[in-house]
Amino acid sequence: MNYFSSDFKLGILGGGQLGKMLLYNTRKFDIYTCVLEASNKAPCKIACDEFHLGDLMDYNAVYNFGKQVDVLTIEIENVNVDALETLENEGVKVYPASNTLRTIQNKAKQKLFYIDHNIPTADFSRFAYISEIEDAVANGGLKFPFVWKAAQFGYDGNGVKVVRQLSDLDGLPKGECIAENLVPFKNELAVIVARNASGDTKTFPVVEMEFHPEANQVEYVICPARIPDDVARKATEVALKVSKAFNHVGLLAVEMFQTKDDAILVNEVAPRPHNSGHQTIEASYTSQFEQHLRAILNLPLGRTDNKVGGVMVNLVGAEGYTGNVVYQNIENIMTMDGVTPHIYGKKQTRPFRKMGHVTIVNEDLNEARRIAEEVKKSIKVISE
Amino acid sequence: MNYFSSDFKLGILGGGQLGKMLLYNTRKFDIYTCVLEASNKAPCKIACDEFHLGDLMDYNAVYNFGKQVDVLTIEIENVNVDALETLENEGVKVYPASNTLRTIQNKAKQKLFYIDHNIPTADFSRFAYISEIEDAVANGGLKFPFVWKAAQFGYDGNGVKVVRQLSDLDGLPKGECIAENLVPFKNELAVIVARNASGDTKTFPVVEMEFHPEANQVEYVICPARIPDDVARKATEVALKVSKAFNHVGLLAVEMFQTKDDAILVNEVAPRPHNSGHQTIEASYTSQFEQHLRAILNLPLGRTDNKVGGVMVNLVGAEGYTGNVVYQNIENIMTMDGVTPHIYGKKQTRPFRKMGHVTIVNEDLNEARRIAEEVKKSIKVISE
Repeated sequence: MNYFSSDFKLGILGGGQLGKMLLYNTRKFDIYTCVLEASNKAPCKIACDEFHLGDLMDYNAVYNFGKQVDVLTIEIENVNVDALETLENEGVKVYPASNTLRTIQNKAKQKLFYIDHNIPTADFSRFAYISEIEDAVANGGLKFPFVWKAAQFGYDGNGVKVVRQLSDLDGLPKGECIAENLVPFKNELAVIVARNASGDTKTFPVVEMEFHPEANQVEYVICPARIPDDVARKATEVALKVSKAFNHVGLLAVEMFQTKDDAILVNEVAPRPHNSGHQTIEASYTSQFEQHLRAILNLPLGRTDNKVGGVMVNLVGAEGYTGNVVYQNIENIMTMDGVTPHIYGKKQTRPFRKMGHVTIVNEDLNEARRIAEEVKKSIKVISE
Repeated sequence: MNYFSSDFKLGILGGGQLGKMLLYNTRKFDIYTCVLEASNKAPCKIACDEFHLGDLMDYNAVYNFGKQVDVLTIEIENVNVDALETLENEGVKVYPASNTLRTIQNKAKQKLFYIDHNIPTADFSRFAYISEIEDAVANGGLKFPFVWKAAQFGYDGNGVKVVRQLSDLDGLPKGECIAENLVPFKNELAVIVARNASGDTKTFPVVEMEFHPEANQVEYVICPARIPDDVARKATEVALKVSKAFNHVGLLAVEMFQTKDDAILVNEVAPRPHNSGHQTIEASYTSQFEQHLRAILNLPLGRTDNKVGGVMVNLVGAEGYTGNVVYQNIENIMTMDGVTPHIYGKKQTRPFRKMGHVTIVNEDLNEARRIAEEVKKSIKVISE
């Protein structure tokens, strides 16, 4: 197949910011692109060859879109998997595979998949209804504290809650869920694995999510992670094992815990470019977006080590501000060495809404980390 | 002015490949963009917010387009300068300035400008008609060999010819031209200077154009140039002097000769992102396109040194092939370390047509240069 001609069409399900960054990279290779998205205001609209309006969870919308393309990928997991399965059977190359998405979309299934494949993960129990959790606590089968996770449709911290007493369950969705051991961990790590259809595999360096000491929110993604080599090696091996277990094609971002005794436990995965890989645009020899394209088009994978150290800071709406967005002090952070803001173009801010990210690169990772702190102190996403 | 909102509009004259690469960078900053271009098939069409059809040399087309934007820039020099002058008088920020473009558009004026500002350049004579060159040769005022250059509208090697005998003038355009001393040089160098409206200035490292030993064509752009520090310093000083003389805002690419005795002579300039800066996308802390935006929006300029060594190879149509383009062995070059192809998306190839470029980056510049040679040997732009 000649990707470098207009006979070939790449389809992307989802028209958000990840899709937009993926689309920029298709331009390097002059790939013809089609996007399906429910909103006419999607960021991708300006960057694709064909924009199709449609609901990603609707069988017909996804099927009719997918049958027009040669390779179909996603930028968001919540899509109609039955349609993907039909498309696969009809010869469309779907990456990630419908099977993989079906497993990942349901956190209980995802956890069982790890157990079945001897992939280390925190112990958990599965419940069809949240009321069953109450029963399990009552009869001693489940002890506080534990982590409640909705089986479906949770992301970006939604659908996850630490439960320390029964009343913490109040107001949570009633449906299928898991209760997971609360693992005391030293670090939250992530490895992005790229695998093409020929089975060639490359991993990006292990990254470290550094948490705010009080707010328990990820503040910095640091690449490479400041961990011993043997821990990095172990995390990379686990990530590779997960990618292989899924027989995955494309990028797979594997989020893991490094426990107090340096065990590695898989938390969850994303079968696509991921927030933990944004720093690759500036720091790596190959950006995660270019690598995803190389993988799903079965091209040779690019070099994944860093040119320089990279730190990523998310730009989220400040508390107390809702309305037309203003990036206070953005010019200030642009005076700092190796700082690149990525503004996603959302016109309205609200507390904690993800509005962009900032990458800080430097030949000295500690210096990048220091500048990242300056960035964090300086810029503020507020409203007019 | 708040660039990071849709109240602000950036206008770009020209819809070609340079404009497209510039547009990708506007997305990082969420800048609203308008493009004027005569062809409905322009590469920029897919990457801008508003696409306007119109002739860049037409006063009304440029004026009517320009009065709708806040800042106006170019991606090609051949635009209607009178319209730019009117727009400047009406308060539109035009970078590069109409004055600068008027000087640069005419090679005789450009050379006189260097003389007036004590900027070193090869000796030359100006002629209103090519017949005056014949007279000057006949009366001994001009000796072979010399370089004939059309005063206007020549680029990419058009409008330039080495003249060793009278018959070499046959078939050349009859109009205004210059005859320049043929300077024996060691190296052709270039420096890109960025200057914002506040007058802050940064220079990218000196790059070296390495020529094919026989074909006398630029084969590789190498960054940084493999020249002594004092020569690099001198070239940078000259480039800064040129930028200051023009009171230039935006990028100014200054092409220079390093003579046999290490003098620096300015050859010509381009007031925009330039072929000699493409490697900055992968090699530099700030790409030339982002830097041009920072400069014309009067934002702080980014860091301009290299993360790693960079070499750029132009992809041009091979001799003997005309028609639907095929990038033979592109997958082969993608197996090589640090190699990124940039395919411009032109559907038809013809001999020497610029179809794209390839960047090769490596921590060791010599290794990048070695891989660049492999790239050059491997990929071939042919037709179906």
